[in-house]
Amino acid sequence: MSDLTKELEGRCHRARAAARVLAALDRRRKDAVLAAIAARLEAETEALCRANAEDLERARAAGLEPAMLDRLALDPGRVAAIAAGAREIVALEDPVGEVTSLRRRPNGMQVGRMRIPLGVIAMIYEARPNVTIDAAALCLKSGNAVLLRGGKEAARSNAALGDLVRAALAAEGLPEDAVQVVPPLGREETKVLLGLAGLIDLCIPRGGEGLIRLVTEHARVPVVQHYKGVCHLFVDEDADLDMALAQVENGKLSRPGVCNALECLLVHERVAAAFVPRLAELVGRGLEVRGDEATVALLPAARPAAPDDWGQEFLARILAVRVVAGFDAALDHIARYGSLHTEAICTQSYARAQRFLREVDASCVLVNASTRFNDGGMLGLGAEMGISTSKLHAFGPMGLESLTTLKWIVQGDGQVRG
Amino acid sequence: MSDLTKELEGRCHRARAAARVLAALDRRRKDAVLAAIAARLEAETEALCRANAEDLERARAAGLEPAMLDRLALDPGRVAAIAAGAREIVALEDPVGEVTSLRRRPNGMQVGRMRIPLGVIAMIYEARPNVTIDAAALCLKSGNAVLLRGGKEAARSNAALGDLVRAALAAEGLPEDAVQVVPPLGREETKVLLGLAGLIDLCIPRGGEGLIRLVTEHARVPVVQHYKGVCHLFVDEDADLDMALAQVENGKLSRPGVCNALECLLVHERVAAAFVPRLAELVGRGLEVRGDEATVALLPAARPAAPDDWGQEFLARILAVRVVAGFDAALDHIARYGSLHTEAICTQSYARAQRFLREVDASCVLVNASTRFNDGGMLGLGAEMGISTSKLHAFGPMGLESLTTLKWIVQGDGQVRG
Repeated sequence: MSDLTKELEGRCHRARAAARVLAALDRRRKDAVLAAIAARLEAETEALCRANAEDLERARAAGLEPAMLDRLALDPGRVAAIAAGAREIVALEDPVGEVTSLRRRPNGMQVGRMRIPLGVIAMIYEARPNVTIDAAALCLKSGNAVLLRGGKEAARSNAALGDLVRAALAAEGLPEDAVQVVPPLGREETKVLLGLAGLIDLCIPRGGEGLIRLVTEHARVPVVQHYKGVCHLFVDEDADLDMALAQVENGKLSRPGVCNALECLLVHERVAAAFVPRLAELVGRGLEVRGDEATVALLPAARPAAPDDWGQEFLARILAVRVVAGFDAALDHIARYGSLHTEAICTQSYARAQRFLREVDASCVLVNASTRFNDGGMLGLGAEMGISTSKLHAFGPMGLESLTTLKWIVQGDGQVRG
Repeated sequence: MSDLTKELEGRCHRARAAARVLAALDRRRKDAVLAAIAARLEAETEALCRANAEDLERARAAGLEPAMLDRLALDPGRVAAIAAGAREIVALEDPVGEVTSLRRRPNGMQVGRMRIPLGVIAMIYEARPNVTIDAAALCLKSGNAVLLRGGKEAARSNAALGDLVRAALAAEGLPEDAVQVVPPLGREETKVLLGLAGLIDLCIPRGGEGLIRLVTEHARVPVVQHYKGVCHLFVDEDADLDMALAQVENGKLSRPGVCNALECLLVHERVAAAFVPRLAELVGRGLEVRGDEATVALLPAARPAAPDDWGQEFLARILAVRVVAGFDAALDHIARYGSLHTEAICTQSYARAQRFLREVDASCVLVNASTRFNDGGMLGLGAEMGISTSKLHAFGPMGLESLTTLKWIVQGDGQVRG
């Protein structure tokens, strides 16, 4: 066994021991740690920003692109926002210990299910220091230990944040190893971590396609993927076209770089002539339209879509637009090109709204509401670890409950099986 | 791409197309297929038994052990029992389409979660023809397509059962490819199947340790494991010792070869002198006790336990017995040697019953009830695909609900995100 394997196994074993302690904690003690983390974030803002400035300097020198630098950067305002996020998690109900049902069986036994932590979670993510605290706070509140492996560009920031969390745990008399910031690992080292079957209960990769593929290929531990969002909006023949235009604008232009942004618009052919030309208004505000033939005929500003524009996650002010023969053609397009992330319809038809909700396969399906609402906060979860596009275990935004499982409990008075 | 990969990918694509049809079906049509399957099983009993007889003959010639031959064998009574099992699934509620909650957000949107099928399930199991129909029926009722890869010794039986199910589907106007019996695959071929990421939504391996390890090592698709059961019973200092003896007897002797059988007894040292000698009664009925020093001193019939008797799944009339210093020592033993399957305590102490239920990590935790109750039918699920020892997605007996997931649904009237 290599030294690295030994080192990572040692971390997992310490995390497991810590997880046993966390699993049995009352909410009060968990909330106390989260509040202490928030207070320390505020007290140590200056030191955190200094560590982050070193990361930023090296990342700039290494030529990291501006969008990535922006995600990496901390300033006092951002640190305050991270602290506020931890306090929001204090306010959430503790999911652990909930008994979701308790029913009496014919033989008199009471049978129910009790919510418990998963155990040890490994979070693999890019260079975003805010995720370090968000993930640590969600895992602690749900009674899980966590290994945090962030992008190497954030190494100093994450190390400082990890020290802060561990100091808060120690001050509350809790095991520091409940939260471990793993030093940045290369590709080969990440594979070792992903191979620790039986020691890690859940791996959550959150990042670009390359990261997700690496994890899918090499994981021997359970994985919930946070993959790309190729989100569609279908404008039905019965749509309110003013509403539809507002949905396109919000879905595409409010924040084009996120996974719940709109990427492809499908327009029913019966309203194409009335609706497609209205996209010119958005083109005037920086939108690039890549359309099929019918779209280009109705919107001269559109350029012809290439075959791989369908199913593309542009993450930019680019929208693929296609005129479809009807509802079933729209569903077929989504089934073929969708990414199981977010799909929306704009319609006033009761029947088609119901069919869309029932039949479309995605973690969030919306009627007359922006794709941008597929987000833990917007859907009422309070905070999220990311948005799962795996159907197993958690589908959609992963909140506290997604970091738990249900075990069966039986309260008997001597029953035996006949 | 190899021919085999192409063939298996083709199967998956056909299964996916069938799954879209199944996902939208009303309960009535699904129940009609299940009833038709039950009727065909009864009508074709003779032919099924003939195909099975060929399997049995070859398996005997190949020297398959008696326990395996018994699992492989069909006779008219067993076929009738399989048909009755399919009819029991007809009687179960359809899980698909349930909206588990629908709440209004501050902006007026209604947000809820709707239960949907997983899609395509691959079941990998040993030579047990009854599993072929049980799994097909559970998958159909929950709206999933299924690839069934059973043990090669059951090839003819499974082919006949698969033809029967497909004929029933076709007669109801439903896609035959919803249920596909995959011809027996070797190790290398199974690896190909397990590598079809994106085409299989869930793989359920059910069988011995070798099969589970093969799947864990090579799967690139989500897996829920059905692993071994190393089940403990802790006899607390406050236990009713008559009840405890009945629990040991039922747990160990009622059916020693199953995964929820008792494998290890932990006895509080304060009741060891009163309780351990009473095991002699079970020794007289064929029980072999492998004990620690304290046990051997109290029960002359016991032989000393070897180190690897702790954590061992004997699947035989063998019981490891250890005297422990108290409740915490029992929990430590279970945390170290348990298999997350089933753990029980016998106690009259309210506090320790509650702590045991809360703190013990297993798919089913019981107070004063036999470990043998960790079973879908016994816990009220009606029917099961097996017992998951993975914490993710499903923990414990997997019934219909475990073959589904929840997607988010949003009913708006034009909301956009601010």
